[in-house]
Amino acid sequence: MRMHRSEGQGAPGIEPGCPVFVFARPAGAGYIGPSKGDGSKMQITIQQKSLSKAVETAFRFVPTKSPAPILSGVKLSAMDNDTLIVGATDLECGVLVSAPAMIRDPGEAVIPARVFNDLVRKLPDGELALQTNDHNLQIKTSGIIAEFNGFSAEEYPVLDAVKEKNYDISLPYSVFRQVLDQTLYSISADTARTIFTGQLWQLGENELIIVATDIHRLAFRRLRNMECPRDISGIIPGNLLQNALRSFTNAAVNVRLSEIQVRFTADNITVFGRLIAGNYPDWRRMIPGEEAEAMCKAMIEPAEMLGVLSRVVALGGNPSVVRLTMSDSGIGVSGSSEIGTLEEHVRGVVNGDVEVYFNTEYLIDSLKPFSGSVEMTFYGETNPATIRADCPDKDDYVAVLLPVRMS
Amino acid sequence: MRMHRSEGQGAPGIEPGCPVFVFARPAGAGYIGPSKGDGSKMQITIQQKSLSKAVETAFRFVPTKSPAPILSGVKLSAMDNDTLIVGATDLECGVLVSAPAMIRDPGEAVIPARVFNDLVRKLPDGELALQTNDHNLQIKTSGIIAEFNGFSAEEYPVLDAVKEKNYDISLPYSVFRQVLDQTLYSISADTARTIFTGQLWQLGENELIIVATDIHRLAFRRLRNMECPRDISGIIPGNLLQNALRSFTNAAVNVRLSEIQVRFTADNITVFGRLIAGNYPDWRRMIPGEEAEAMCKAMIEPAEMLGVLSRVVALGGNPSVVRLTMSDSGIGVSGSSEIGTLEEHVRGVVNGDVEVYFNTEYLIDSLKPFSGSVEMTFYGETNPATIRADCPDKDDYVAVLLPVRMS
Repeated sequence: MRMHRSEGQGAPGIEPGCPVFVFARPAGAGYIGPSKGDGSKMQITIQQKSLSKAVETAFRFVPTKSPAPILSGVKLSAMDNDTLIVGATDLECGVLVSAPAMIRDPGEAVIPARVFNDLVRKLPDGELALQTNDHNLQIKTSGIIAEFNGFSAEEYPVLDAVKEKNYDISLPYSVFRQVLDQTLYSISADTARTIFTGQLWQLGENELIIVATDIHRLAFRRLRNMECPRDISGIIPGNLLQNALRSFTNAAVNVRLSEIQVRFTADNITVFGRLIAGNYPDWRRMIPGEEAEAMCKAMIEPAEMLGVLSRVVALGGNPSVVRLTMSDSGIGVSGSSEIGTLEEHVRGVVNGDVEVYFNTEYLIDSLKPFSGSVEMTFYGETNPATIRADCPDKDDYVAVLLPVRMS
Repeated sequence: MRMHRSEGQGAPGIEPGCPVFVFARPAGAGYIGPSKGDGSKMQITIQQKSLSKAVETAFRFVPTKSPAPILSGVKLSAMDNDTLIVGATDLECGVLVSAPAMIRDPGEAVIPARVFNDLVRKLPDGELALQTNDHNLQIKTSGIIAEFNGFSAEEYPVLDAVKEKNYDISLPYSVFRQVLDQTLYSISADTARTIFTGQLWQLGENELIIVATDIHRLAFRRLRNMECPRDISGIIPGNLLQNALRSFTNAAVNVRLSEIQVRFTADNITVFGRLIAGNYPDWRRMIPGEEAEAMCKAMIEPAEMLGVLSRVVALGGNPSVVRLTMSDSGIGVSGSSEIGTLEEHVRGVVNGDVEVYFNTEYLIDSLKPFSGSVEMTFYGETNPATIRADCPDKDDYVAVLLPVRMS
């Protein structure tokens, strides 16, 4: 999956032998270029649909505001006999997409991504002949000649994913998608506290634990019966996970975690990047355990509650706050804003009394991943509440939500 | 269709008896309010689907940046026995949508549009009970009570459409949609020259002529066999036409043109507004006539040419400019930008030689309304070219496009 490799280099603070997004051209001499292609012309043929799909996937990883002009390009690398690799990176997160191609002469090119993506997808179906000339790339197909002014491929960062082989786990795509849907909402958007913009992935004792929290809420997910040779954990950036989710479709996802990097591979697409450095907080303390005294338990139907909450959100309010009034007589839901007020009653089996306020959007996020009935447990007006599915495996997925304090 | 009427008032410069968007409350005493509803409670019942659809249509006419806070509302008017009228205006363009309802007590209300629209559409299907209390509106339906803080309905502008009956024409929806698709693209977005932001509609000699131009291009459309009792013309604001197009679906469109106003009605929706004052330029001079000497004629397939042009646009360039090279050997199309170049050949029967540059987007706009083969006629590198359908009625729809001068 690697594109080309610069020997023995490492960015400051990164162990040698594990280069991640190092700009490939070293200062000074002694540079060992790609095995072939240096000055030589790349000549390949590829189906328009294959190229278009690969470029489209890679394009999502091109930064909109490029830290360096060259990163506004996608890198084409034709080294093997039958594969073109299209890569892109924003220096935090990268992608490598392989597409079947006929390589007449190997070589590399970096082409401005937006225009390239847009034009390739508008080319007619059929075989395209690609040829480089210095930094430029020419595409020929029936009656059409397109030429692109590119960048020097040698100056593009090395796109390289984790190489160690012994920590791989494999997740069916549906499971990969589900665990991210169940947890990703809970990470923080606040880049000032980097740790919380990522998700803890913890492999050990034959289970994978995924935790996401922004302090106001937490999502915990456990997958059992995972075969992993040793304990390892890392904080994976949320945008890397989102990018992976958007890129993959329905193939099994291979996960490879190292001390500093993570790599997700499904079919012909590899998404990879550096882990977030630092210590994840003690998330176990944030989930009320069995010793905590529940003030109220309620069985509710998420679909019905989400309908009500969507109306509370529609009412406005910044932020929208919802009041839940739980009692033997049922569940009252109410909200208000400058524009007006809303009061509803929803069905539910309630055991205990409590009046508690939540950020409406947060409560929606927490309820959305559930399909069947859920058990909400309240531990008081100011303590985190928990949501669990009404099923035997209910402790494998727990959503925790801190109430809003109302004066 | 009118909601309520203030007698004998008129804004400066508008003839009495034809009030258009006059704020209803007069300075000082002597105000004659609506026939009923002054202080009285409105009480109606209406199906959620009917109210939701009407409010959604009216909401599109609510200005996003309101010139007056009250205009951020939609007006509900329940006067007749079986109809609720929902209205909105940005003072330039207005709408009245009627919906079947049961009126227990007549009355009016003005409710903040965004929240009202959002919430009503999220209410469950079924009957809603609406009731006003001063400026407030309460909606009740099973288990739900929503209350909105509204504005004083009496302070909302009078929503009034043209009343004279004798200039009506009727267009099948498909024709209404077609003539706007064929012409609307050609109006100007430059609000500094108001005349060109509108479209000339000219009724006379049993035909309707529609002309739109922004000086760089022009679209001419003629509908024959229109029964109209007298000659009348007006410049209709482009956004009013766009709003009408978005609001109507598939009913015949009734057009009523007066000296200062226009009104479009289809089914239960009336869109209306003031005409643009001023004299439209002599558009006949802008269409090359039979006396003009053609330098080159070409028959082309718009679909194929549009495919090529979409790739020229993808290449970028600000603005994108395309070169057409017409000769006996065919049609060459090329474009270039900082990023690269593109050259293509398209099929076409060409009679004559010319090399001419166009703004690519403008050429796309001009070709899009055509489906079958078109005849492009060129009168030189700097003279407007014309596009006509290859059909007997080809003079009923003409697109004119001025080339770009290249140094």
